[in-house]
Amino acid sequence: MNSNNDRNERKEITKRSEDYSQWYLDVIAAADLAENGPVRGTMIIKPYGYAIWERIQRILDEHFKELNIKNAYFPLFIPERLLKRETEHVEGFAPEVAVVTHAGGKKLEEPLVVRPTSETIMYETFSNWVQSYRDLPLLINQWANVVRWEMRPRLFLRTTEFLWQEGHTVHESMKEADAWARQMLSVYQYLAEQVMAIPVIPGIKSESEKFAGAFCTYTIEAMMQDGKALQFATSHNLGTNFAKVFNVSFLDRDGNRQYGSQTSWGLSTRTIGGLIMAHSDDKGLVLPPWLAPIQVVIITIGHADSTGVVEQKAREIAEELKKAGIRVEIDARQLRPGEKFYEWEKKGVPVRIELGPKDLANNEAILARRDGGEKVSIPVNFLARKINSLLADIQTNLYKKASQNMVSKIKKVDTWDEFSRAVEAGNFVLAHWCGDAEVEKQIKEETGATIRCIPFEQKAEDGECVKSGKPSVTRVIFAKAY
Amino acid sequence: MNSNNDRNERKEITKRSEDYSQWYLDVIAAADLAENGPVRGTMIIKPYGYAIWERIQRILDEHFKELNIKNAYFPLFIPERLLKRETEHVEGFAPEVAVVTHAGGKKLEEPLVVRPTSETIMYETFSNWVQSYRDLPLLINQWANVVRWEMRPRLFLRTTEFLWQEGHTVHESMKEADAWARQMLSVYQYLAEQVMAIPVIPGIKSESEKFAGAFCTYTIEAMMQDGKALQFATSHNLGTNFAKVFNVSFLDRDGNRQYGSQTSWGLSTRTIGGLIMAHSDDKGLVLPPWLAPIQVVIITIGHADSTGVVEQKAREIAEELKKAGIRVEIDARQLRPGEKFYEWEKKGVPVRIELGPKDLANNEAILARRDGGEKVSIPVNFLARKINSLLADIQTNLYKKASQNMVSKIKKVDTWDEFSRAVEAGNFVLAHWCGDAEVEKQIKEETGATIRCIPFEQKAEDGECVKSGKPSVTRVIFAKAY
Repeated sequence: MNSNNDRNERKEITKRSEDYSQWYLDVIAAADLAENGPVRGTMIIKPYGYAIWERIQRILDEHFKELNIKNAYFPLFIPERLLKRETEHVEGFAPEVAVVTHAGGKKLEEPLVVRPTSETIMYETFSNWVQSYRDLPLLINQWANVVRWEMRPRLFLRTTEFLWQEGHTVHESMKEADAWARQMLSVYQYLAEQVMAIPVIPGIKSESEKFAGAFCTYTIEAMMQDGKALQFATSHNLGTNFAKVFNVSFLDRDGNRQYGSQTSWGLSTRTIGGLIMAHSDDKGLVLPPWLAPIQVVIITIGHADSTGVVEQKAREIAEELKKAGIRVEIDARQLRPGEKFYEWEKKGVPVRIELGPKDLANNEAILARRDGGEKVSIPVNFLARKINSLLADIQTNLYKKASQNMVSKIKKVDTWDEFSRAVEAGNFVLAHWCGDAEVEKQIKEETGATIRCIPFEQKAEDGECVKSGKPSVTRVIFAKAY
Repeated sequence: MNSNNDRNERKEITKRSEDYSQWYLDVIAAADLAENGPVRGTMIIKPYGYAIWERIQRILDEHFKELNIKNAYFPLFIPERLLKRETEHVEGFAPEVAVVTHAGGKKLEEPLVVRPTSETIMYETFSNWVQSYRDLPLLINQWANVVRWEMRPRLFLRTTEFLWQEGHTVHESMKEADAWARQMLSVYQYLAEQVMAIPVIPGIKSESEKFAGAFCTYTIEAMMQDGKALQFATSHNLGTNFAKVFNVSFLDRDGNRQYGSQTSWGLSTRTIGGLIMAHSDDKGLVLPPWLAPIQVVIITIGHADSTGVVEQKAREIAEELKKAGIRVEIDARQLRPGEKFYEWEKKGVPVRIELGPKDLANNEAILARRDGGEKVSIPVNFLARKINSLLADIQTNLYKKASQNMVSKIKKVDTWDEFSRAVEAGNFVLAHWCGDAEVEKQIKEETGATIRCIPFEQKAEDGECVKSGKPSVTRVIFAKAY
């Protein structure tokens, strides 16, 4: 391995310490995840980036099916009049929508909105699907693209079109709907923490930050390496707000007509942006093993392998690992080893197996882990067993690192001076807030920090609002956010 | 089972012999597959219809991955100037496109076309991705929604928005591209014949029927029960037409710059329309077992089952069938058996297991097949073994029935008089055609029949064009089509 050459090639990726924002874009390019589309703010998700999205889809979809949620598909185009029916909702989305005015060579009689989310079009339909308590709970999910015009686009984090799933349910009671909204949040928390190794803080949004039209919004908030927050996913208890507007009502067990209590919950390709910023380093992407589309890459070494012995052995090992349920790829290209190592490092593959003629002669292979770079030599026969525990160890290690980063950057403050400095330094700031939206707005204007959530775990505690000095009953988390 | 009552309920579905067109819509409603969206021509795919699409997706996607095709995602919005770059292509699609003119609260500087297909936006990008023969073949697929404004919409068959996969490849040579296009057609043929039990005729499209911008279009054509054709899927050899316009070029093995040879191929939710019309009957949907989202439904019988013994046994059987790889559901609702039978019949589930207290006492269950209605009593212990062979038998039977229908409605004719009568009666007509597009147009205007394809299997044969009398070297298939 030619380390000089490696150093040269690595210059491609800007260091985090130099320019975090440019580093993020460099990692996406280096790992070949995505690129800008021809229309400003649109994104082309390249095969490796899409493979990560497919992993997320597969894992969530399996959970959804276990919960008896049914997938369906609703139209992309929403008549403008439908979107306008829920006042808060349209106010929230109107500035962001894209509008189709012409189709089939003619001007349309009514403009069509390209869905920014599907509450309105779905609930208009749910009003027919739901008649009796026997039709409940109605549990529908859709995998789809949505469009929200972005003023400051950024690959994965804010794109004009993005991919997501949106779940929409109807329940007999507010209590059941609320429990469901929280349950779906815990599914997202599972994905974030157990699969993507990203610790999150679950909580409730303030009134100004909640979803347009919701009764309340639950969120899981993740911390990036720079201490900024990323809203990982949200789940909304919609109460009967939309049900009243769209007449989603049912005959209850006592024969009375009632409005359904509803929830909606979504997770998007934005989480891939969070994934990148949670784990990656100056060498490129770092992927947690349970998510990684490729967990292990076997790299053949040695131009002299004209007999194909090494490649043959690589195939045997790959077959064995596949049988053990490991996602493995072989790189048998006739390139310098350093070049191959470097490429897979950029792509964040958790484990690399180096296999050369000398190693084979000793019946050994070299194992290198992406999260630490530690290399060990190991008998080929033990590979499958060793790798499963190695993957588990890497997964734990990444979660631990991210947790340590988070814990070290949560600051409890009680004065405005401390608050401003803690926000500026890139922290999650636990501070008292009086509950006044005007004060929240003022804080945002002065520091750039928003209320990320009122954590579920936050206990009642009497105090004074860090800004207004008015009484407060609990601390909330303020932070700058992506 | 109350057969009187069943007869009454069955009146919901119009008979095929009375009104084939209404029967089609009735089956969709009865099986709960889809309904119209609020914008004319749009479709809401309901959970059971979407489950069928998910089966198709899963099967195709596995094949694609085996062929090393990579999934990716390209933007929904195509700048108008891009779509306009390939002349034939824009002429083909311009009348059908939907156009976004406003977004983010402003009029856009350039109108955006909602993708009717993605050749233009993808190939603009491929021109960067492809530099050397080492980058080839480039094999990309995308699962997406597309929009084509429909004048005569019809659920599944012609909807303004539909779901599909579109594959796009770049190859070193025209020969390789052509072989690839044919290979993908054979993947579609596998899905149609082996999974969906629909026999198809593979062939090549005439110049007037080929894809706008293609060098040539391969197709598989299916026959519906009424003798009309349905284009099941197409695969295009694009030659270097698009490559020249979008500069998709590469340095070949000899160091010369060459244009890439390209293919594109797609299959959409339209095939579900074909599925319905190929197998279903006056009782509702009929699903081939290898495709069916639910292959077996276990129906509990007897209100007296207050102890839950029957339901418990149903669960045990379901677990056993699941272990045998069978997709099974239990219907333990406290409804009359006839009502339950009827519902699952409408949904086309291939096999029904009836389980009542009396059957259980004898350690037996009753098996009924959707394709014939034949009922047999069978010891519970033999169920799993019996059902696998039963499913295979139903699959074969459906394919055989559809084949017999097709064979009986392919007519070889040599005179114009015979031709007109054969088309009118609902047949695939094998006739000589001189190759003149004007004659093809005239035939379409007079009879409504189009050239479905020139079948691969059609041998060279000298003859006279059935319309113009001019010399012809092979027969082609004419038919009315959906």
